[in-house]
Amino acid sequence: MKNTISFDQQALNYSAKPKMEINLLSPMKTRTDLSLAYTPGIAKVCQLIQKNEDAMFTHTFRQNALAVISDGSAVLGLGNIGSKASYPVMEGKAMLFKRFGNIDAIPVVIKTQDEKEFIETVKNIADSFAAINLEDINAPRCFTIEKELVKTLDIPVMHDDQHGTGVVVLAALLNALQVLPKDGKSTKIVVLGAGAAGMGITMLLTTYGFKNIVIVDSKGIISKKRTDLHAEKKTLLKLTNPDNLSGSLQDALKDADVFIGVSRGELTEKDIKLMNPEPIIFAMANPTPEIMPDKALKAGAGIVGTGRSDFPNQINNALVFPGIFRGAMDARYKITDAMKLAAAQAVVEYHKKDLSADTILPSILDEKVHAFIAKRVKEASKK
Amino acid sequence: MKNTISFDQQALNYSAKPKMEINLLSPMKTRTDLSLAYTPGIAKVCQLIQKNEDAMFTHTFRQNALAVISDGSAVLGLGNIGSKASYPVMEGKAMLFKRFGNIDAIPVVIKTQDEKEFIETVKNIADSFAAINLEDINAPRCFTIEKELVKTLDIPVMHDDQHGTGVVVLAALLNALQVLPKDGKSTKIVVLGAGAAGMGITMLLTTYGFKNIVIVDSKGIISKKRTDLHAEKKTLLKLTNPDNLSGSLQDALKDADVFIGVSRGELTEKDIKLMNPEPIIFAMANPTPEIMPDKALKAGAGIVGTGRSDFPNQINNALVFPGIFRGAMDARYKITDAMKLAAAQAVVEYHKKDLSADTILPSILDEKVHAFIAKRVKEASKK
Repeated sequence: MKNTISFDQQALNYSAKPKMEINLLSPMKTRTDLSLAYTPGIAKVCQLIQKNEDAMFTHTFRQNALAVISDGSAVLGLGNIGSKASYPVMEGKAMLFKRFGNIDAIPVVIKTQDEKEFIETVKNIADSFAAINLEDINAPRCFTIEKELVKTLDIPVMHDDQHGTGVVVLAALLNALQVLPKDGKSTKIVVLGAGAAGMGITMLLTTYGFKNIVIVDSKGIISKKRTDLHAEKKTLLKLTNPDNLSGSLQDALKDADVFIGVSRGELTEKDIKLMNPEPIIFAMANPTPEIMPDKALKAGAGIVGTGRSDFPNQINNALVFPGIFRGAMDARYKITDAMKLAAAQAVVEYHKKDLSADTILPSILDEKVHAFIAKRVKEASKK
Repeated sequence: MKNTISFDQQALNYSAKPKMEINLLSPMKTRTDLSLAYTPGIAKVCQLIQKNEDAMFTHTFRQNALAVISDGSAVLGLGNIGSKASYPVMEGKAMLFKRFGNIDAIPVVIKTQDEKEFIETVKNIADSFAAINLEDINAPRCFTIEKELVKTLDIPVMHDDQHGTGVVVLAALLNALQVLPKDGKSTKIVVLGAGAAGMGITMLLTTYGFKNIVIVDSKGIISKKRTDLHAEKKTLLKLTNPDNLSGSLQDALKDADVFIGVSRGELTEKDIKLMNPEPIIFAMANPTPEIMPDKALKAGAGIVGTGRSDFPNQINNALVFPGIFRGAMDARYKITDAMKLAAAQAVVEYHKKDLSADTILPSILDEKVHAFIAKRVKEASKK
């Protein structure tokens, strides 16, 4: 019998049953068990923490607990739908954390979209968790929020839309450049989109050493001529656009080798023809890529990746965030640039033997890659 | 071989291994599974909630999630040890919620002890949970905090130290009065302690109909003569002390039939002899009761209960809070006085056949009693 249920209905059915639960790992059968798990025995663990706060990381659920936190202000493909409606994304992400990082993640949505109040709320609950994944918070608020929380909290905090995306794109790009070598660190890269993902990608690519990046947002190339740039875009300008280009996406694409799209924009076949031969095209807009893979290939693209699982070369941060957080939590270390670079390099190292133009990244379902990333991230924390 | 490990060491060992975890209930094996659990399928669930917020209670983890929240300002037997050191108690309570109420409870400790900031923080995260158990917050802050959160949040919120204790004491008292009948609702009851537990007990006993309650705090009988009473104690005064007594605990005990201790005070054999014959003594101070059961019985007590599991007649809110919250969550209804009374009456009804002077309450380990309480609480929400 043919499956006649639509994908949308399948998605609703999948969530109509409980998807995750708390599971008890210790015995709770006898009065003695209860007196150890709760009063009076538990007082000993309280006193242990009073003496040394680190005991929270050896004797409580906190040691493996992560909060996936959002205010619902920039939900992938849906926009600012508010905190309640964003909850299912946080729960889905919590499931990925468990499945691929063995991390006990809890979805937490925060009612306020006031930046200061949001920050205070997260600070007030942070001692309940070993790490915080910020998610789906719109730009430029996400930059201020992450910066302040990374600075003040003593646990790993990362806005995955920025840095998870940055790491997986760097890994994909390094691999693509092995299949189709270009000009090394001087390769001209055009990034379309300067929201959270565009910023994260550009920052990490710059940190890695790429020298010729041009960013294009909805108003055109980010250049010295622009008078409408907020603080973060001004920072990016200093790191990018070495030839001081200005104008449109098309102006940027001339002589470019790589296109990275994280926008709501479009890339045409004509646009691809403006680029150098066999360009690398990462059209990651969700759910509709800036250009469909078949069209991009027809126009001369050498390698094409998208964010989607139904085309080859899916470039999705789910490949890296479980390992990044697992590694940081195991190290009990805040997530540094060195750890992000190590995560991308771990993917490259792991995938060496299986690399091809159609398979620039390992599968998200490959459990070993997540553990390998975690190991390398933990190691990098010690440098 | 004899067990030579001390109880304290056993308690530390018990917590040195992970006690609970997140467990996935839905398949996450294939790319299709991932696309249903996360993007793009999860967007359908987001849109469902956008249209109707109630879908959070049918299609997400929220439906069965409860937060056990504290600021660590009044941890049983330990005092104001701060939020971090209080965490193990919240985790232990979360385990009891799962074990006896099948509720997925998450420990959440809040850094601030500023009343207003605490309230704002809980309001900001409340949409992530189906119910909130406030725990170990000192008086009189706990009254303001609970009142404001019950008023403004649309989910069940209860400070268990007040109301869970109130419910289990009412159940214990009603059963004790069946074994040793006194003057019905005119029975003279002395409550020692006017913190969270003392307030919760007195409020519920009064709501039930007991007319002759005298409260004693560290400064003596709560009477019109007192000039040091905060708002809540003034409210209690209106409901208690019909004979306008003043003075010491000993002054209160004359002609009393029932003593309920939730204090750091002491009750002597001599004190018991001031009371009517065969008084009911609930000496619930933790970990050391106001008087030890053997002494109380020697002095003439008819029935003795304590908070401890190593004596007969343990009076512990763990007997009732899982059922109260399970019932309220199933009903999706805020916890009313009628529901609290129904919980106490459910215990009485359930225990009818097994009632004796040494067994005034069912065992916490009896799983059926929790389900029975939940059923009665849910029914009471509909009245």
